[in-house]
Amino acid sequence: MVDARRADVPVLIDGLQYSNWSEAIFRQMNAVGLACVHVTICYHEDFRETVENVIAWNRRFEAYPDLIVPGRTAVDVLAARDSGRTAIIFGFQNPSPIEDDIGLVEVWHQLGARFMQLSYNNQSLLATGCYEAEDPGITRMGRQVIAEMNRVGLVVDMSHSAERSTLEAIEHSSRPIAITHANPAFWHPALRNKSDAVLRALGQSGGMLGFSLYPHHLAGKSDCTVDGFCTMVARAAELMGVERIGFGSDLCQDQPDSVVEWMRNGTWTRAKDFGEGSASDAGFPPQPDWFANSLGFANIVDGLRAVGFSAEDVARIAGGNWLDFFERSFGPVP
Amino acid sequence: MVDARRADVPVLIDGLQYSNWSEAIFRQMNAVGLACVHVTICYHEDFRETVENVIAWNRRFEAYPDLIVPGRTAVDVLAARDSGRTAIIFGFQNPSPIEDDIGLVEVWHQLGARFMQLSYNNQSLLATGCYEAEDPGITRMGRQVIAEMNRVGLVVDMSHSAERSTLEAIEHSSRPIAITHANPAFWHPALRNKSDAVLRALGQSGGMLGFSLYPHHLAGKSDCTVDGFCTMVARAAELMGVERIGFGSDLCQDQPDSVVEWMRNGTWTRAKDFGEGSASDAGFPPQPDWFANSLGFANIVDGLRAVGFSAEDVARIAGGNWLDFFERSFGPVP
Repeated sequence: MVDARRADVPVLIDGLQYSNWSEAIFRQMNAVGLACVHVTICYHEDFRETVENVIAWNRRFEAYPDLIVPGRTAVDVLAARDSGRTAIIFGFQNPSPIEDDIGLVEVWHQLGARFMQLSYNNQSLLATGCYEAEDPGITRMGRQVIAEMNRVGLVVDMSHSAERSTLEAIEHSSRPIAITHANPAFWHPALRNKSDAVLRALGQSGGMLGFSLYPHHLAGKSDCTVDGFCTMVARAAELMGVERIGFGSDLCQDQPDSVVEWMRNGTWTRAKDFGEGSASDAGFPPQPDWFANSLGFANIVDGLRAVGFSAEDVARIAGGNWLDFFERSFGPVP
Repeated sequence: MVDARRADVPVLIDGLQYSNWSEAIFRQMNAVGLACVHVTICYHEDFRETVENVIAWNRRFEAYPDLIVPGRTAVDVLAARDSGRTAIIFGFQNPSPIEDDIGLVEVWHQLGARFMQLSYNNQSLLATGCYEAEDPGITRMGRQVIAEMNRVGLVVDMSHSAERSTLEAIEHSSRPIAITHANPAFWHPALRNKSDAVLRALGQSGGMLGFSLYPHHLAGKSDCTVDGFCTMVARAAELMGVERIGFGSDLCQDQPDSVVEWMRNGTWTRAKDFGEGSASDAGFPPQPDWFANSLGFANIVDGLRAVGFSAEDVARIAGGNWLDFFERSFGPVP
């Protein structure tokens, strides 16, 4: 394996992946110097099913102790970097693991979860997803759950949420929130990408945006260039502040198309939903050739320098900002 | 026990109760001639917890075979009447027993459920409850689930739902829906009572309203008179049609106040919610003296005659209309 690690990037962090986990994938994370990856452990699963996914991760930590370690704090991430390994942080794309029980928020923090989306593509008990026709904002239970997440240090993630719900989450949350994986709509107006109003409010409130490398979120989709991507990052930095941005690749490496079908349909519908795809283009789209897997972060680091970012700003975007955010967010309010 | 049974009411049906079930309560049902009671088997429970409530009912059917029988069809109700017993029909006040799995709709029909509210007081995955500040109408999953409920013969109940969601449920459902327990807002403008627009749409679509005897839904609350109640029924009959109305008492006989606290708070909040009550009036309100238990239906039957309903119309309101509705609604479309 080529060592793609960069001396000019002290900490490299990916704000979201959902790959078909394997030794090969973990070795790529180590090789490029990823000190931390936030991994999805729930799309649609309920409490018990998500616990099963924790068990699967416990087995991986046992099987690959030289490659991956559990990540609960910023300190864990630094320790992983120092030992050449990757810290794995758990998060949910849907609040289904808390079912309708606010008491499960603290239980999940105890089990290692650090991010929870208040809604996936549909309406949840807490907030609205970006594919609903209407967005009434944060619900009665949503306001209660945000307060409890703030108390224990479980980060509100609005990556798949609709506009009003996202703005209200920023407002109701007493601590900064994250959009772990999405891009600015000014660059590519996908439903999943975010408006200037959301990005500005996120930046001003001390939150974080992780830039997605999922082709449906990219201008030009699979044909997007690294230069185009990095130019977008520069515009987003102007809008939000360079301290408020990082990566959240949404990489779904080695997953079969049955997984994207399950992500979109779960068990909520008998008709077939194609989400960001279509009947004629239903599978995972091909990744851009400069980001086929985690090694591609080396190309992005070069690209950010090429569009004019300083070494210091590249270090922030590549992981320093996420590390600061983890430090502020993952425990009770000091 | 006094025999309160009325020869002029061939079939007496109560469209909703959630009492602290006992032999004494079942004997009152038999004594007044209740051929059928729709009982709530879920307020907040998930699939597995609601199955536990089915088990509890199976034990009651075993313990009191001379008093109660399972009700799945209109024919079961007539058989219960002919044998002097009461048929028990299952329903949910919340869609939580299907969790996020549309496949559970048919499973619940197989287990005997015949009514499901699309939302209780809060936002659900399907629709909005009457205590939310905003009502975006039926969700993406809601439209799918209504179609599946229509297919198998599980009745959509919007008793606790908000206005727009209720109107959209009437519109999206290919079969008539029910509001099993609520009153007209023109009589008592509680959040839980229904607007003229809802009542008119419900009547025109072939649906059913069950009049509630829960004091928070009554003009004058616990001091409401039987004459006042029956005068309201006459006005509702003019608005909706005398074929579209019945009883849905919402009787919570012998329940401790801890139960109403649980109904309101479930596990969704850490703050305390008082629902229709208040901090100074948090418990179950006292029933009007003319409807302390099921025997009170005899007083209402007298009251309906006193305000001018014909014997034929009283028979419809007391149970004939529900029986017709059950016949049209509880199986697949013929």
